[in-house]
Amino acid sequence: MKGFFKVQTPEQLYAKIDRFRPLASEKVRLEESLHRVLSEDVVSTIDLPEFPRSTVDGFALMAKDTYGTSEKNPAILKVVGEIPMGQLSDIEVKDGEAVKVATGGMVPKGADAVEMVEYTEWLDVHTLHATKPLSPLENVIQVGEDVKAGEVVLRQGHMIRPQDLGLMAGIGMTEVHVYLQPRVAIISSGDEIVPIETIPKPGEIRDINRYTIVSMVKEAGGIPVFLGIAKDRFDDLKAKIDTGLKDTDMVIITGGSSVGTLDLTGEVLQTFPRTEILGHGVSIRPGKPTLLADINGKPFLGLPGHPVSAIVIFHFFGKPILRILSGVSRKWVWHQMKVKAKAARNIPSVPGREDYVRVNIEEKDGSFWAHPLFGKSGAISHLTKANGLIKIGIDEEGLEEGEEAEVILI
Amino acid sequence: MKGFFKVQTPEQLYAKIDRFRPLASEKVRLEESLHRVLSEDVVSTIDLPEFPRSTVDGFALMAKDTYGTSEKNPAILKVVGEIPMGQLSDIEVKDGEAVKVATGGMVPKGADAVEMVEYTEWLDVHTLHATKPLSPLENVIQVGEDVKAGEVVLRQGHMIRPQDLGLMAGIGMTEVHVYLQPRVAIISSGDEIVPIETIPKPGEIRDINRYTIVSMVKEAGGIPVFLGIAKDRFDDLKAKIDTGLKDTDMVIITGGSSVGTLDLTGEVLQTFPRTEILGHGVSIRPGKPTLLADINGKPFLGLPGHPVSAIVIFHFFGKPILRILSGVSRKWVWHQMKVKAKAARNIPSVPGREDYVRVNIEEKDGSFWAHPLFGKSGAISHLTKANGLIKIGIDEEGLEEGEEAEVILI
Repeated sequence: MKGFFKVQTPEQLYAKIDRFRPLASEKVRLEESLHRVLSEDVVSTIDLPEFPRSTVDGFALMAKDTYGTSEKNPAILKVVGEIPMGQLSDIEVKDGEAVKVATGGMVPKGADAVEMVEYTEWLDVHTLHATKPLSPLENVIQVGEDVKAGEVVLRQGHMIRPQDLGLMAGIGMTEVHVYLQPRVAIISSGDEIVPIETIPKPGEIRDINRYTIVSMVKEAGGIPVFLGIAKDRFDDLKAKIDTGLKDTDMVIITGGSSVGTLDLTGEVLQTFPRTEILGHGVSIRPGKPTLLADINGKPFLGLPGHPVSAIVIFHFFGKPILRILSGVSRKWVWHQMKVKAKAARNIPSVPGREDYVRVNIEEKDGSFWAHPLFGKSGAISHLTKANGLIKIGIDEEGLEEGEEAEVILI
Repeated sequence: MKGFFKVQTPEQLYAKIDRFRPLASEKVRLEESLHRVLSEDVVSTIDLPEFPRSTVDGFALMAKDTYGTSEKNPAILKVVGEIPMGQLSDIEVKDGEAVKVATGGMVPKGADAVEMVEYTEWLDVHTLHATKPLSPLENVIQVGEDVKAGEVVLRQGHMIRPQDLGLMAGIGMTEVHVYLQPRVAIISSGDEIVPIETIPKPGEIRDINRYTIVSMVKEAGGIPVFLGIAKDRFDDLKAKIDTGLKDTDMVIITGGSSVGTLDLTGEVLQTFPRTEILGHGVSIRPGKPTLLADINGKPFLGLPGHPVSAIVIFHFFGKPILRILSGVSRKWVWHQMKVKAKAARNIPSVPGREDYVRVNIEEKDGSFWAHPLFGKSGAISHLTKANGLIKIGIDEEGLEEGEEAEVILI
């Protein structure tokens, strides 16, 4: 009964994920594009700003009129007008003249700098003292200084953040080309698994994985489609996986009885055309019995039945695959939010597996300290007390108190 | 024209946010509770697990039968059955007996430990060699070891993550009490601001702030309600703010012409009963002309018209206020995702203001390096090239190359 499968290192299995490809793209309205991924470069058709703008409240003038000025030797300027916000003005500033402008307002013809209001004083209703010497273009943002017409402002594969939406709004884009969001079929499996509304009989347990994996798929930008609980039977597994492959872009199954179910699942997968099993077993703890396959180009991920293991493996395999399908640029596919933290006590580990110990991170004296939460695999309560997973490398025997390591935030 | 308002330090203004209170609560279905905030403690009514479970694939037995065993001196056990997953079994393990169990399966009566399959070998169809000595309870998770009936498993004020959903699923909670999501009115203002579909005439600019602030409100767990663009006129501002106060839980206005509009806005606010202006002006760059008020218990935030300033101020004031309304526990209200990074070159700053310089963070040789993106205030393109804001303290004159500082990730 030994050697159910050939265990691979995480790196061996990560390398195999690269084969998957982004989905097709669609056009969405700008306001619906937050956190979506650009399927084309964004090129501005206009200059931004489209007119020279003041960056301060003050007076537009010719910089040369302020040369050599000081508190004791102010420039004397004739205020010839004011530019109302949002209005075109044909005022032209001449030698010795100034025009009142607000932050963001147009800098009128003739003027090449703006004296801040703080450095001015009215002498009478038409005359102003200005005390600070300015160099040309000071406090002015020129045409195209922010964005130039023809410039690529955002790249294909970029995930749209609020500031990116703002830039696209600024250049007048009302629609954006983005990759489709991956639809992900989620199947729970195991004869002992019951819906959470059910009161479990002895030996039965509630379907935790449905809720954690659906949530993690949402967080990773996918659209979860829960297909129900499959019994540990060939026909039931096959029917549900078949539905998933037909209706969605990726299939995830959580294995009720870990090894047993995933072995059976492996057999089921072989019945679909163009199936390649990429890995069955990975040297990560928790999470060893992981199944990864390519079914005619669609990723299939079999997660361990243990909720904690399933969550850990989803972080390292599910999320990157979803990002690839979403079209995220390759350098972000493997991104994890992480910090460096010191072990708050000794954390033992068995070499030969990459170990992710649940920790609670605390900031103290300017450093992060990771307090390990030990517990038997499957204790979901530990994961709710944790806010990180500290990594102990495959060749390490653990961390000593005070030793620093990477913590992935969860 | 000097001294439009009395500028406060960020800390002075932060302290005034504490007065706001969480909204009412509602009951939602478990699957709709991701990222919502618990309005009550969650108490488990059951033990988890509800029966003793094996944490490995192997054989349940009496630990004492394995004492002193080794590869050379194995225990010989009679396998008296197998416990199918999800099924009740009345098998009782006696001296010298073992029962096959899968990971997660029930450990039968009489047994107090589980020998991993890796340390066993079949002699014949009924007889097994076991080579690893076990202590009692080894590889067994006991009743209530994960969660005990009556235990508080999650606290009021906690934001629900995937693992928390999993725990609640595990204890059979189908509905969750959470705080209402704050509805946030968003008003753009300024005579020069036009909808993005419009081709701006000279002097006009497109409404960038609508899109950035709506997105940031979404990211902070609020429900944005855009009320349109207000002209810089008392009546128009008053009408839109009035609608916001009636229909939503918080009102945010972005000021087209910064000082000017926010001054006018301040006057408008005074016409509402029980208005208290908490601050008008904060020593943060970019973002100085910020307006914060309490209108009969509802927060009102006036953001600078510059898109970059508006984003920065939203990070430091808008987000914490939204978190308070959402019921997030106080220690998380001020949380920002941040890393420590070294300045990749000298970054000058003017003392007397807290300065947030837009930076691009790069990981190199195990450290984060912050490359400053200099640019005039209002250059939205810089913010799209940035992934962080490096903080230069109010009393500092800048950072020298190689000096370390906090970077808030954006």
